Amino acid sequence: MPRKRSIIAAAPMADILKQAGAERVAEPAAQVLAEIVKEYTFEVAKDAVKFSKHAGRKTVKREDIELARKRV
Amino acid sequence: MPRKRSIIAAAPMADILKQAGAERVAEPAAQVLAEIVKEYTFEVAKDAVKFSKHAGRKTVKREDIELARKRV
Repeated sequence: MPRKRSIIAAAPMADILKQAGAERVAEPAAQVLAEIVKEYTFEVAKDAVKFSKHAGRKTVKREDIELARKRV
Repeated sequence: MPRKRSIIAAAPMADILKQAGAERVAEPAAQVLAEIVKEYTFEVAKDAVKFSKHAGRKTVKREDIELARKRV
């Protein structure tokens, strides 16, 4: 899934690490952070979709995301 | 910090929710997912920076991110 791969890129992760106080960021560090963030996002998203369906809705709402966050 | 705010935007979050099976996504759901993902990313990043400094390095490496992931 090339789409999935490109949604959260390594470059902004290096920026975030610098904002968090990093002087330098190794390229593999930014890449692995992007991977971790993608996995986390998909975990929350999958749970949120489940919760919206369980509530009989076709639309994912804010409350589904908030409930999903507590579980991941 | 406008920079920080724009790093992870709501639009790709809606795409991820659709990839996770959502038929429709309410705008506030995408926004709150972006917020949650940003917070998570900064938590991991802050810990990773701490670990790199603890190891006497100025460069954040992959292993710092991996250790930080286990803690967040």
